[in-house]
Amino acid sequence: MRIKEIKGILEKKGLDFALFYNLGMETNPNMSYFSGYSGLGALVIPRKQSPFLIAPEMEVEKAKKGVFKKVYSMDKKKFFESIHQIIRKNKIKAKKVAIDYGNFNLNTHKYFKKQFRKVKTKDISLDCLKLRQIKTNKEIQIIKKGFNYGNKILKKAINNFKDFKTESDVSGFLEYQSKKLGLDVSFPPIAASGSNGSMPHYEPKNVRLKKGFCVIDFGIKYKSYCTDCTRTIYIGKPNNKESEIYNLLLKTQKNIIKNIGINGSCGKIYENCVKNLGKYSKYFIHGLGHGVGVEIHELPNLTLDSKDKVMENMVFTVEPGIYLPRKFGIRIEDTVLMKKKTEILTKVPKGLLII
Amino acid sequence: MRIKEIKGILEKKGLDFALFYNLGMETNPNMSYFSGYSGLGALVIPRKQSPFLIAPEMEVEKAKKGVFKKVYSMDKKKFFESIHQIIRKNKIKAKKVAIDYGNFNLNTHKYFKKQFRKVKTKDISLDCLKLRQIKTNKEIQIIKKGFNYGNKILKKAINNFKDFKTESDVSGFLEYQSKKLGLDVSFPPIAASGSNGSMPHYEPKNVRLKKGFCVIDFGIKYKSYCTDCTRTIYIGKPNNKESEIYNLLLKTQKNIIKNIGINGSCGKIYENCVKNLGKYSKYFIHGLGHGVGVEIHELPNLTLDSKDKVMENMVFTVEPGIYLPRKFGIRIEDTVLMKKKTEILTKVPKGLLII
Repeated sequence: MRIKEIKGILEKKGLDFALFYNLGMETNPNMSYFSGYSGLGALVIPRKQSPFLIAPEMEVEKAKKGVFKKVYSMDKKKFFESIHQIIRKNKIKAKKVAIDYGNFNLNTHKYFKKQFRKVKTKDISLDCLKLRQIKTNKEIQIIKKGFNYGNKILKKAINNFKDFKTESDVSGFLEYQSKKLGLDVSFPPIAASGSNGSMPHYEPKNVRLKKGFCVIDFGIKYKSYCTDCTRTIYIGKPNNKESEIYNLLLKTQKNIIKNIGINGSCGKIYENCVKNLGKYSKYFIHGLGHGVGVEIHELPNLTLDSKDKVMENMVFTVEPGIYLPRKFGIRIEDTVLMKKKTEILTKVPKGLLII
Repeated sequence: MRIKEIKGILEKKGLDFALFYNLGMETNPNMSYFSGYSGLGALVIPRKQSPFLIAPEMEVEKAKKGVFKKVYSMDKKKFFESIHQIIRKNKIKAKKVAIDYGNFNLNTHKYFKKQFRKVKTKDISLDCLKLRQIKTNKEIQIIKKGFNYGNKILKKAINNFKDFKTESDVSGFLEYQSKKLGLDVSFPPIAASGSNGSMPHYEPKNVRLKKGFCVIDFGIKYKSYCTDCTRTIYIGKPNNKESEIYNLLLKTQKNIIKNIGINGSCGKIYENCVKNLGKYSKYFIHGLGHGVGVEIHELPNLTLDSKDKVMENMVFTVEPGIYLPRKFGIRIEDTVLMKKKTEILTKVPKGLLII
């Protein structure tokens, strides 16, 4: 994906090749973005020659299923030694190398420097993030398919809600339905009932669903691309104040989405949200939104002081929330695609559902 | 957990405090190991004063449920600025700081250095890994409970195997049963049937289970501690050669576990495995085992050239495998606890099960 663009960046900055690696259990988002391979190994994108992967013997078969057919086998223990040899063998210049500071740890850097002693490195983490924030038509197609799946699963969970007894019944159902379709979740699903909902990143437990608001935050991964959606339902009967707060949040959220325009300032959008929430804004304790792509959190940032601008073909969330400590939490989150206007990808009803 | 030991390391190395952070979606294993908190933020363990957490406002409530009651709130955007202020306010010396090179990326390091300009840093990643490889009695209790859950779920999946039609039916079932109990999986479960089994890290798909061997690799997380177990069953009727290869692998695996003793060399154990597998050893394409704890892969390493020694209270896997490219894969994996002898924690039958 977008090899031409990354080569353009190398050209512009006078860099000889870009190097990405993945040595742990977590995937490197940039490696899977550019190569379609998310296993162990390294990706080399030379400015002049064709890109290739280097993977341990046990992963070679899997790596060949990615975008690049050129896959070298290597010894994981001699990681940078192998890379160094392959680079030399292919006569790739190696004076200035592009690396991704956000996915390059200090330990690995130490080993890298042992092999590439006189090599200068330049950080391209921001270049990659900026590239990734604008989605291509091909990506948008994939993302839309992903949301079809994500929306269906979330709607199914909400429709079946009466069958759930515990928070982990809810999160388990969401995960099971995803797996059944061969999909991973983009993060462990959240089901936070009653006072648990006041922790935005609460981890659901095997405990009975409490009465009151229940925050359900869920997304899947389809062909490496994440989806993200939150709905808050009500178990029992909300009092007037609770309905009022929910409806204020919903009105705010809809209003924000309606008013987002190309070239808009993300910091301003956040400010508007705070204004809209009035006296409840002090209970809005996280960012308003974030880009979504091969990572669940990408650019742009819809936060206070954000300098990001809204651009065509961005995909990002709008998720205001109100959290009353030890009482309850409410969050309404849509993911939108920016065209001339915003297109809502999370087609799941968001009026207060009382169960 | 083990604050005394980490303070001892700081004392010995003349370091003023240890700093761990987590800014992304992934948890920092050392932060959750020492603090019991796995959300966003930072953990500071001063050599002389009490340890404390620093978390964004939205995570403070969750952070207080960890080991330390002292939790400061901070602005995520001004991460190291906040940390710097709190360190100064608490009059904590900051000339030499212990950081974990394995969980500290180059970007974060840049921001860290902006705030802590004249501070010298020392890597303690290996110290932490070495501390973590020997489990305390309290940890062993938790780990054993975890395996009770993990074993039950895997046995249930194998008993229900006739109901599964696709690979993702298997992985979905494993994940659902875990979630229903409020448990996370320690990695996405693997169900690799037929020729898919020849990729050790295959990701199960929504495809019909193929006849032949089916590798099932599964673990859960209980109170932050991982479990890990692989069984290979047979769908259909194995021919003589297939049964023979399975039994050779099983005999090898049992033999290795029986012969592991305290002070044994992990490299030697690997060598023995290769000898035992004879002509099939060339199809054994990964390490023989790894430690298991708050991370699914920890010390010790049971690999070629490993210098690690087997010690009491280590918990690690023994998982030889035979992978015939594009044909099939077989892996038999137990996790063992090292006492005077090895205790097998993965109590799931391992004779060839034909379905």
